[in-house]
Amino acid sequence: MSTLTEVPAALRAAVDAAKERVAALHAELPRWELVVWTAGNVSERVVNPDGEDLLVIKPSGVSYDDITPDAMVVCHLDGTLVEGDRSPSSDTAAHAYVYRHMPEVGGVVHTHSTYATAWAARGEEIPCVLTMMADEFGGPVPVGPFAIIGDDSIGRGIVETLRGSRSKAVLMRNHGPFTIGTDARSAVKAAVLCEEVARAVHVSRQLGEPLPIAQEHVDALYERYQNVYGQR
Amino acid sequence: MSTLTEVPAALRAAVDAAKERVAALHAELPRWELVVWTAGNVSERVVNPDGEDLLVIKPSGVSYDDITPDAMVVCHLDGTLVEGDRSPSSDTAAHAYVYRHMPEVGGVVHTHSTYATAWAARGEEIPCVLTMMADEFGGPVPVGPFAIIGDDSIGRGIVETLRGSRSKAVLMRNHGPFTIGTDARSAVKAAVLCEEVARAVHVSRQLGEPLPIAQEHVDALYERYQNVYGQR
Amino acid sequence: MSTLTEVPAALRAAVDAAKERVAALHAELPRWELVVWTAGNVSERVVNPDGEDLLVIKPSGVSYDDITPDAMVVCHLDGTLVEGDRSPSSDTAAHAYVYRHMPEVGGVVHTHSTYATAWAARGEEIPCVLTMMADEFGGPVPVGPFAIIGDDSIGRGIVETLRGSRSKAVLMRNHGPFTIGTDARSAVKAAVLCEEVARAVHVSRQLGEPLPIAQEHVDALYERYQNVYGQR
Amino acid sequence: MSTLTEVPAALRAAVDAAKERVAALHAELPRWELVVWTAGNVSERVVNPDGEDLLVIKPSGVSYDDITPDAMVVCHLDGTLVEGDRSPSSDTAAHAYVYRHMPEVGGVVHTHSTYATAWAARGEEIPCVLTMMADEFGGPVPVGPFAIIGDDSIGRGIVETLRGSRSKAVLMRNHGPFTIGTDARSAVKAAVLCEEVARAVHVSRQLGEPLPIAQEHVDALYERYQNVYGQR
Repeated sequence: MSTLTEVPAALRAAVDAAKERVAALHAELPRWELVVWTAGNVSERVVNPDGEDLLVIKPSGVSYDDITPDAMVVCHLDGTLVEGDRSPSSDTAAHAYVYRHMPEVGGVVHTHSTYATAWAARGEEIPCVLTMMADEFGGPVPVGPFAIIGDDSIGRGIVETLRGSRSKAVLMRNHGPFTIGTDARSAVKAAVLCEEVARAVHVSRQLGEPLPIAQEHVDALYERYQNVYGQR
Repeated sequence: MSTLTEVPAALRAAVDAAKERVAALHAELPRWELVVWTAGNVSERVVNPDGEDLLVIKPSGVSYDDITPDAMVVCHLDGTLVEGDRSPSSDTAAHAYVYRHMPEVGGVVHTHSTYATAWAARGEEIPCVLTMMADEFGGPVPVGPFAIIGDDSIGRGIVETLRGSRSKAVLMRNHGPFTIGTDARSAVKAAVLCEEVARAVHVSRQLGEPLPIAQEHVDALYERYQNVYGQR
Repeated sequence: MSTLTEVPAALRAAVDAAKERVAALHAELPRWELVVWTAGNVSERVVNPDGEDLLVIKPSGVSYDDITPDAMVVCHLDGTLVEGDRSPSSDTAAHAYVYRHMPEVGGVVHTHSTYATAWAARGEEIPCVLTMMADEFGGPVPVGPFAIIGDDSIGRGIVETLRGSRSKAVLMRNHGPFTIGTDARSAVKAAVLCEEVARAVHVSRQLGEPLPIAQEHVDALYERYQNVYGQR
Repeated sequence: MSTLTEVPAALRAAVDAAKERVAALHAELPRWELVVWTAGNVSERVVNPDGEDLLVIKPSGVSYDDITPDAMVVCHLDGTLVEGDRSPSSDTAAHAYVYRHMPEVGGVVHTHSTYATAWAARGEEIPCVLTMMADEFGGPVPVGPFAIIGDDSIGRGIVETLRGSRSKAVLMRNHGPFTIGTDARSAVKAAVLCEEVARAVHVSRQLGEPLPIAQEHVDALYERYQNVYGQR
């Protein structure tokens, strides 16, 4: 289906800027202890006003010490390579599926962060018992289906779980979290906060049951945070 | 109620010194793993002998990599901006409320540190079972009410819980800890030690019940520490 | 049995390259928090086409700050010293036994990483409930026997447990993990991922029972990962 | 009882060397996450062949960023100051008591490391279920009595618990660990390993009961490690 064989000249600057951003954002994953070794990946969509969009992602199996803008690879939204010296991340098909089916998504992140993965291994959603969760996720962080790597089933599971949900994070069963955002940075933020709330709620439940937050308060917190927080 | 439209010349040096201190102290929050991403904030009161006090605080949603003295913002004690290029932290109203109602407080810190937040999510105070807790907090670390962000209810909850208490820390329910001090540095110290004791007591209780410390020993430890510890 | 009294001239370049690699890989152990103080060690086999193989390993009781290529020592596959100013690691006999009895192994790593050691102290294998485990270990991470340091019993326990297993990691009872690989780098990767899955599965089980992964899916994941992942 | 009013000329070089070592070893406490803020301290005995020994220790309440050899203070073995611009650590009396009553001890360390403190808060010894514990501590890590800071009761509790014990570490009830060694470095090593085994055994017990190690094996491991490990 994809017809581009190289990055169009009109997208050159946008692709290069995305490579810079995506490379820099990868450093946030070990910084906040979301990944070990070469695990985890960040991608960003490059919008093409004149044709099909592209995505920028980390190559497969590359050390976090070797991640530079030039090392990033560019792929079609079917996951095949357009530009780069190395194979794209083995999770590229899942990222690409999300971009194809959720046009509002501009960034995707995948990690195996410990506490989020622990909830995922039990197939249990994270209940919304922290104001930070209401702010960022607008409710519980949901669980997606078990899916085998290598075809569309991971991407489909992400999209089916997150479409129509307030949550920017899904815990793929027995696997780990995927997060989405309007750009790569907001997807990385969601990955960081997903692990943070996964850990704090886990720790809280170790010694008893956390107190629920009334739905009206969850709604009010979510509304405010989406509209007020940060710089405009 | 606030009439100043800029920092008075007589406070210039004090405000600039506070910006230096507050910016530098923010680095302690990620250093001791009390915050992720842009969460958490430190403020300090600037006393104005000739009129209303001011406060210096971090802007909203700014990365810990971008925190410099110049990036700090100055606010009235009603939370409105006096000086700075960016919006103040979304928690400024809570800090300001504390300064208005507790004149002895010179610094306020807010984090979502994991273990303190876990106790807060259960609405459970941290029992005083460590000599370090008796030293710094003089007893248990208390829980404050559930409060919605955006009006005075967080500030009110902090003040009602800490006024008349030995504790410099309050665990706001389903939210996280706020700490106070005579200046920003001592409030940051309290935030660091609050998480430390939250974690150690949590870990201890995972395998049994920690032994209580007799009230007379708590009192003796608190007296000594407040009067003897550190350099004079 | 060993007749070499020094590194043969024909192996000089290969030994020096192995010293560089082994020294650099030691930095990964504290980086991923697998070791404290001087604990832990990495070794690599140097193949000798004209005679007996050698191994390169860290000296005993040396700080991670002092690990340089020149500080590494070279030993016979019976564990005795060929080259180096210091005594080889006290675990050298175990590494050497593995190289003697598993010719396909090119690298060995030993750590006392916390979560893997915790499973080892209970003598309990780590069940395969994460796709990352299926990828890297092809099933559960098995437990080896209790063995005293100082003779062949640790090496024998490793070999008896891992020979014929898909797993690159064994949890030696009451002791800690040993991992193997085709070279030192892949054995270090296995050590990093062993701790990662030990921690995530531990955390998951703290609040319930993780969901099993069907054997056919474990097999499919393992096959794909061994053949597809990374750069070729 | 102490008559020296300054460091004798004959001890100058030895005192300065001890200041260097003690300052550098303090960096190991935050490095291995044994302390937060200004908590924790390391001391070393300076032997005086011609009279009373001295000790070098960290001043009270000083940031780990400000620890230099010159900032270290020198005290009599009754805890009073001989040389230095600041007050000695508030734990100096406990260190001094140990040096007075255990002439074989050359270094003392005190931390509030999380897991060791958690066992201490329950007043429970750490059972010897890891080969690393048998190596370093020769058996369980024992608990000392509850003691108030500020007189000899902490020092007495340490000495009564460790005299005649193989263990270099004692968990002071509701307080935290103290460790001893032939010099400051070996006491720091014991502090690092004490937290390591406190954590691993804690984690192991969270999901069941660790397997005991037979006493004869504990004895054999301890003998070997004390006599064989490291460089000679």
